[in-house]
Amino acid sequence: MEEVSLTWEMLKKNSDGMVPVVVQDYESGDVLMAAYMNKDAYEQTLKTGTMTYWSRSRQKLWVKGETSGHFQHVRELRIDCDEDTILARVEQTGAACHTGHRSCFYRRLKPEIQ
Amino acid sequence: MEEVSLTWEMLKKNSDGMVPVVVQDYESGDVLMAAYMNKDAYEQTLKTGTMTYWSRSRQKLWVKGETSGHFQHVRELRIDCDEDTILARVEQTGAACHTGHRSCFYRRLKPEIQ
Repeated sequence: MEEVSLTWEMLKKNSDGMVPVVVQDYESGDVLMAAYMNKDAYEQTLKTGTMTYWSRSRQKLWVKGETSGHFQHVRELRIDCDEDTILARVEQTGAACHTGHRSCFYRRLKPEIQ
Repeated sequence: MEEVSLTWEMLKKNSDGMVPVVVQDYESGDVLMAAYMNKDAYEQTLKTGTMTYWSRSRQKLWVKGETSGHFQHVRELRIDCDEDTILARVEQTGAACHTGHRSCFYRRLKPEIQ
């Protein structure tokens, strides 16, 4: 797989000046959660190897696991073709979701079709 | 897995009034792409079972595959704990990425750590 170096400035930001991050369990392939990074979160994640986000609700830098102990260790970060979304493949300690579920995506949408 | 019925109005929107969608290959578990839905895209996807997005670049409803033939058939839609992100598990025909790659996440970010 091709490797690229991208500074924060090179990424495409959303309307809030942030970049969405999709978080996937490195071993199972399960999608665990989605969150957002600002410049500090991005650079701290690259530097420390521990997933760090911008908490929109608390308006502060958020080292995932800092209160719960449920840290996410980076195994691989990927970038999509238009450089506006990050895919983080991680080793998840415990549950990714604050509800206690391993993944935040623990509910299925009932379809109209069937 | 719990099943829920959620109308568009019940979902939490981003600053652009849309909901981000993470698209995962149902069989391999690979994350294929990320895109956005507006109300029409959401309702059309639920109704037809074929992934439909809002194209931010073209500013129009976008049935994925309508020009390339690379349709995405919905196998399962999931919603996250705070109801602001959709996970679509799909059968992907051909490549999800316009570059011809199966997944849009075909490049790895070079980490500072190592």
